[in-house]
Amino acid sequence: MNNLIENLNWRYAAKRMNGEVVPQEKLDTILEAIKLAPSSAGLQPYKVIVISDQETKNRIFREAAPQPQIPDASHLLVFAAWDKITAQQITDYMNLIATTRGISVESLSKFQENVTNSVQARSDDGNFNWAARQAYIALGHALVAAATEHVDATPMEGFNNAKMDEILGLSEKGLKSVVIMTLGYRDSANDGLAKAKKVRRPTEELFISI
Amino acid sequence: MNNLIENLNWRYAAKRMNGEVVPQEKLDTILEAIKLAPSSAGLQPYKVIVISDQETKNRIFREAAPQPQIPDASHLLVFAAWDKITAQQITDYMNLIATTRGISVESLSKFQENVTNSVQARSDDGNFNWAARQAYIALGHALVAAATEHVDATPMEGFNNAKMDEILGLSEKGLKSVVIMTLGYRDSANDGLAKAKKVRRPTEELFISI
Repeated sequence: MNNLIENLNWRYAAKRMNGEVVPQEKLDTILEAIKLAPSSAGLQPYKVIVISDQETKNRIFREAAPQPQIPDASHLLVFAAWDKITAQQITDYMNLIATTRGISVESLSKFQENVTNSVQARSDDGNFNWAARQAYIALGHALVAAATEHVDATPMEGFNNAKMDEILGLSEKGLKSVVIMTLGYRDSANDGLAKAKKVRRPTEELFISI
Repeated sequence: MNNLIENLNWRYAAKRMNGEVVPQEKLDTILEAIKLAPSSAGLQPYKVIVISDQETKNRIFREAAPQPQIPDASHLLVFAAWDKITAQQITDYMNLIATTRGISVESLSKFQENVTNSVQARSDDGNFNWAARQAYIALGHALVAAATEHVDATPMEGFNNAKMDEILGLSEKGLKSVVIMTLGYRDSANDGLAKAKKVRRPTEELFISI
């Protein structure tokens, strides 16, 4: 079997983790895969908070997300989307493109106009939802990267977003948490799902071929 | 450099494709990676339309999505989320879990109740947005899988969703298109971005470590 598919079959959403620390090199690979995730117009309208501090994980577990993986994870990643999109953020992005590619900002004026127009065509809520979707692409990248490194990764939506934002001071940063993911190692002995068969809709039901 | 990261650096959103066909085995790997993508509660609230038919690609290009990659792609994938979530879909999913794992449906009653409650707590729009986010995780999986197979993949949001849904008959199927992706091979000679440097926010700006 293809190596990637083997790794994706190995992965599952661990419900219990054993406290073991993910080596820095593996963590770096997962973060780099997030960084390399594409996004609409390339804007990357999110940040990822990488939490290894035990006291912060414990507090999040107590106050915002009661999943037992959280204190026993090596790292907790919080994907937080831009709560709105400002003209300054678009300008900063154009400057980044210009600097990276050694071109003038002026040569990007048509692109800047297009990005500005599509942002202005949406409400703040619409832009936040759009930004959240981009963060989910990055989450998909992180999941595959973790699987290739044989690091367990559990994505989770069921948490108190407002409390999470408060604990991490996200609103001052123009961010709102959208999805979280623990990184660590499965505690097979205490996770009833560690040996459970993966459930997926059959190929002929999930796909329509034309 | 790590192989995965090398592949992710190799990938970019090709703006021109050369018409070459993606071998079935590589396509199957990409589709299997989509199938193995996790989703909230495991519900996989989307379908993926896999279009190789040239006439359909041409029509989509003419009427719904004017990006030049589309007629020159080997395959066009249309990620379509459930437009609302029905009790029947939840029941079908519980039956799938029970059959796959050889357990009784009754043993899943608490889980079924939880899923039902979280669906009922959201509006139809809220559920559609939630379903769309799950489809973006699958998109993230597809992007990494394509990169590992050295197949070019260009995700796109800028298309006429209503027209796409009409062409593909999606609303009769309870689906709405959310994002599309071409699969094929870059036409480096005619794509000004083929050699452009990848633009990404620096690690220290994209991540916050705690």
